[in-house]
Amino acid sequence: MNLNSADAITIANAVHEGKVSATEVTQAALKRIAARDNELNCFTAVTAETALTDAQKIDREIAQGKNPGLLAGVPFAVKNLFDIAGLTTLAGAKINAENPPATQDATAVARLKQAGAVLVGALNMDEYAYGFVTENAHYGATHNPHDLKRVAGGSSGGSAAAVAAGLVPLTLGSDTNGSIRVPAALCGVFGFKPTYGRLSRAGVALFSSSFDHIGPFARSVRDIATAFDVLQGEDERDPVCTQRPPEYCLLQINQGIDGLRIAIAGDYFCKGANPEALETVQKVADALNITEYVTIPEAHRARAAAFVITACEGANLHLEKLRQRPQDFDPATRDRFLAGALIPSNWYIQAQRFRRWYRDRVREVFQTVDVILAPTTPISAPLIGQQTMILDGEEILVRPHLGLFTQPLSFIGLPVLSVPIQRPNALPLGVQLIAAPYNEALILRVAAVLEAEGVIST
Amino acid sequence: MNLNSADAITIANAVHEGKVSATEVTQAALKRIAARDNELNCFTAVTAETALTDAQKIDREIAQGKNPGLLAGVPFAVKNLFDIAGLTTLAGAKINAENPPATQDATAVARLKQAGAVLVGALNMDEYAYGFVTENAHYGATHNPHDLKRVAGGSSGGSAAAVAAGLVPLTLGSDTNGSIRVPAALCGVFGFKPTYGRLSRAGVALFSSSFDHIGPFARSVRDIATAFDVLQGEDERDPVCTQRPPEYCLLQINQGIDGLRIAIAGDYFCKGANPEALETVQKVADALNITEYVTIPEAHRARAAAFVITACEGANLHLEKLRQRPQDFDPATRDRFLAGALIPSNWYIQAQRFRRWYRDRVREVFQTVDVILAPTTPISAPLIGQQTMILDGEEILVRPHLGLFTQPLSFIGLPVLSVPIQRPNALPLGVQLIAAPYNEALILRVAAVLEAEGVIST
Repeated sequence: MNLNSADAITIANAVHEGKVSATEVTQAALKRIAARDNELNCFTAVTAETALTDAQKIDREIAQGKNPGLLAGVPFAVKNLFDIAGLTTLAGAKINAENPPATQDATAVARLKQAGAVLVGALNMDEYAYGFVTENAHYGATHNPHDLKRVAGGSSGGSAAAVAAGLVPLTLGSDTNGSIRVPAALCGVFGFKPTYGRLSRAGVALFSSSFDHIGPFARSVRDIATAFDVLQGEDERDPVCTQRPPEYCLLQINQGIDGLRIAIAGDYFCKGANPEALETVQKVADALNITEYVTIPEAHRARAAAFVITACEGANLHLEKLRQRPQDFDPATRDRFLAGALIPSNWYIQAQRFRRWYRDRVREVFQTVDVILAPTTPISAPLIGQQTMILDGEEILVRPHLGLFTQPLSFIGLPVLSVPIQRPNALPLGVQLIAAPYNEALILRVAAVLEAEGVIST
Repeated sequence: MNLNSADAITIANAVHEGKVSATEVTQAALKRIAARDNELNCFTAVTAETALTDAQKIDREIAQGKNPGLLAGVPFAVKNLFDIAGLTTLAGAKINAENPPATQDATAVARLKQAGAVLVGALNMDEYAYGFVTENAHYGATHNPHDLKRVAGGSSGGSAAAVAAGLVPLTLGSDTNGSIRVPAALCGVFGFKPTYGRLSRAGVALFSSSFDHIGPFARSVRDIATAFDVLQGEDERDPVCTQRPPEYCLLQINQGIDGLRIAIAGDYFCKGANPEALETVQKVADALNITEYVTIPEAHRARAAAFVITACEGANLHLEKLRQRPQDFDPATRDRFLAGALIPSNWYIQAQRFRRWYRDRVREVFQTVDVILAPTTPISAPLIGQQTMILDGEEILVRPHLGLFTQPLSFIGLPVLSVPIQRPNALPLGVQLIAAPYNEALILRVAAVLEAEGVIST
């Protein structure tokens, strides 16, 4: 077993079978982090001491014949907006470094630990999750493991890069407008944003509450399914969290895709992307024998409305600090928050009204199709510091446009998995597998077929 | 039976027993309207022809031994923002007069008709329900039956005055910030605003969707209970309408109030009112032997937040027309809508955040008390055209301040009944009976005791 590339389930199985101890796995992860994170800058905190204590506890349980859980001994790390008891939750902000340590783990962190996983640290991100590049003015840029001169994507850049670099097999991130999917695509790993409200956000620093999702990054479809299963379930600490009973997916992923109606997202999702991004979608469609197209109507308006709501809600959340100490914000987020504070209420209310209309229209689309394919990003990872890119012959800003294809989907809380496509002598790209709310299992079944055929991999 | 003062149940019983026909009752109502509405200006449309047809149908059913329903032959009318099939829904606006006729009755209208009630017309209101006085620039002011020089209150002024003047025993209105309760108090009738979402708003022109309620005006507690019972029930035409099963109240109103914890709203609700308004509350409290006070925290902020949200949502709803033809708006609403369109989104979002906090705090208050008493308005009916009033020694505007005590309650959708207090040689006033969401029955039990003791009456 190569601990640099093994997926979480392989590791957990080996720990269960006594082939390796949780302590050895954890020590190896800490060693990789120590060796490589200086150049990658994924981690903002490494919890070596508690990780080793937790790993020893797993090993004791194994020795006593107990079952420590599905993720026994699997090292994981979380975007630094998840509360970790004893650590200050940074949310990528200098201002938040002054906060007292969290007294309790975020629910998601606690659930992974309960399943036997071992927390090894907190990961870098854009300030307050407002960005697609993880070029954080306070904590530095996270570097893309495929090319250190390039960004990892954001805002969960540390979470994607840590998995891509083999530092840990499993991480958590959050996705408001694409912040799980964009870095997953640019780093060539799996990144999953389940249905809005399906996973508890208790103990997670929010950005724009009506959009914020959490989800896992991993190296295999079964790892994504396992993490999703472990994270599910209602939570009285999060009033937004659904009260639907969990629907476990791991046992469903190998059911195949016979009878599933799959289509490519046309129109909006075929424009404004580099040819390579569209070719990647085509490669997935070919592997699935899909030629049908489907239109998600008014996706460009959905993106505009998502921008407006995010800016307004984000500004409201941070307005007091923006007034008191604007100089302490990352320049890349400050201007957008300030602009958001000046948006008239009518724009916000109109965007929310459109959102209800759009949600109903997209619901109709899912009457005719089960899973939709779309590019995750319009380009592969840009250079760190790169300001503009050429799309459709037009020079446009990089930062706001990496979410071109992700924003219209999180806007109405659809479950989406970004699957990684590795390309010879080129940077990885991602394809989004999109389903109707609560149809995570369908997405994972399609992904499992693509993985088995070797079309997608990390 | 005096048809000028009989309540709906008295009329329906007489119709059921064949003492009077629905046709006779309807003709009498139409005759009263013809005789008196010139000076009152309650009605913007009288549906004499269909009313007589409907009444004849009721009479045929009675003749055939059928039961036409709890409200058989009871004439009723509705604020002109309820759809009436075949009539254009004005919502108090000149602009809306250009709309085609409604093709379907509002759900509430249809339900009263199904219970045997006979619709005789549509009633005057403030333009787009944005006001507390029903001094409509397009359709004229509605006059208070107790003193024709005075306002009926608003925005459901026609609905309150039509009942107070004895034109019809039952009307419907809508309440966003007090638009049922304020005119009910100023005209000396019962006005009921049930829990938010409990009665369907399908076919009702909205003002500020997250606040808009509908409800009945009547002359007796049992009429209010009957109308409420008939209007309850889920409605697929209104997504906001609750899916809770109806809880019928008519049979509960005589259960008395033993064991009920009743208190007077202190602090905010004891200030800024004329002494007569507070004396009226005291009179009700004395009749109930109540001396306890309870504090609804931060009610002044709740009122401010209600103003902000109403202005923003109202402006959004009418913005296109405000841009295209501002001259066609009532000057009394135009300026507020335009101002609302300029409010920054942050105010709106902050008001919504406060609202969640306040709802949770008020929920805690209802752990210790079942029904709360508060004044409905700070003064009795002002003169038509009166711009200012003196409260607590300060001269303030009439229009925005008549809702002083109603706004903090509708803000979080609490059920409230304004009960009428008649005063010798003085204008009537109202007292609000307030309960936790879905506790309409408790309110009606208290009202029934007060009515039986002769403390409240129309």
